[in-house]
Amino acid sequence: MRLRNVKGAKEKIENSKYVILDYENYKGKFNELFQNNNLLYIEIGTGKGKFIRKMALENPNINFIGIEKFDSVLVRALEKVEQEDIPNLKFLRMDATNIDEIFLHEIDKIFLNFSDPWPKARHENRRLTSINFLRKYDNIFKSTKEIEMKTDNRHLFEFSVKSLTDYDYKIQLLCLDLYSEDVSLNISTEYEDKFHNKGLPIYKIVVKK
Amino acid sequence: MRLRNVKGAKEKIENSKYVILDYENYKGKFNELFQNNNLLYIEIGTGKGKFIRKMALENPNINFIGIEKFDSVLVRALEKVEQEDIPNLKFLRMDATNIDEIFLHEIDKIFLNFSDPWPKARHENRRLTSINFLRKYDNIFKSTKEIEMKTDNRHLFEFSVKSLTDYDYKIQLLCLDLYSEDVSLNISTEYEDKFHNKGLPIYKIVVKK
Repeated sequence: MRLRNVKGAKEKIENSKYVILDYENYKGKFNELFQNNNLLYIEIGTGKGKFIRKMALENPNINFIGIEKFDSVLVRALEKVEQEDIPNLKFLRMDATNIDEIFLHEIDKIFLNFSDPWPKARHENRRLTSINFLRKYDNIFKSTKEIEMKTDNRHLFEFSVKSLTDYDYKIQLLCLDLYSEDVSLNISTEYEDKFHNKGLPIYKIVVKK
Repeated sequence: MRLRNVKGAKEKIENSKYVILDYENYKGKFNELFQNNNLLYIEIGTGKGKFIRKMALENPNINFIGIEKFDSVLVRALEKVEQEDIPNLKFLRMDATNIDEIFLHEIDKIFLNFSDPWPKARHENRRLTSINFLRKYDNIFKSTKEIEMKTDNRHLFEFSVKSLTDYDYKIQLLCLDLYSEDVSLNISTEYEDKFHNKGLPIYKIVVKK
């Protein structure tokens, strides 16, 4: 992600109806925020928000929280939704490192779309599918654990398939070239569109345990 | 595999010093055939034998058996080795369907190279990584179970990764583009050379349990 300074980003985020600023009040009870007991899906690294906005619109009976650490990126996501009314969509501006301090046994599915591959071996623990993160996810999932991941990065994908299955997740779906299959139901991200248009294969895995 | 009739194939196979004709005498004691207690690796669908011949030459302290169901293909493998003396290499002309009636708790590793993908769903049980075969392998492995697979067929590979991990095999190595990595130690098959030369990615997985 190339970062630009976006003027007024911080203020826009603080004033947005979509951003949960006082998230520490909702640990273990984000259902109160949404005022219902619907399923809760999160996207870690939500970027400019195309994926989660569309997911939220298409699935009004599921709650969605997009997590993004960069103001300059999150503000782009907010620009898109600010004039809309999507009650089942919220955003958190935070680093996912401490995700297990934000949520507690209340997440039903995690989406990881085009996450930072952290290619250096010494940064393995920063990859969102490393055992470091899988352990944290254990504490935020409600009961059934489900992770959906898409990436164009072959090494991250190879690492993730191994890491997820080592951790006893079972593969529900594995696709090594998403756009060779029927993608009529696929919701793409901004990154995905860019990489796919370059002719690169998009990898996808869905796991559960 | 496009099959040609090879004149005299049957006779050549029956007369080869490399082919085990009386294999029913060795169930559970193939070590007696090799007259040692070395590890025993098998390749199911050995084709024209390039892979297993080179493996046997490079690993004289491991025994290898190549299994091939087609006379016309096996005879090509024999032509290559007939003038050589490779005591740790043998061949079986048989269909792998009943592989658990041939071996009994004596195999250390199975190689599956460019196996028939059996693309139709109703033929799933014929794929060499289907649960149907994984159950048979349980009875032929000695203790640690290890399977190495290479293929150019994306759907077979996706199926296999799921099937193997569902069956609690753990991934030791996963590579979605073998020739993008260091292949100096890779031993290719005839098929592999052909597919790689067409620019197609070669997939590889090594699993163990």
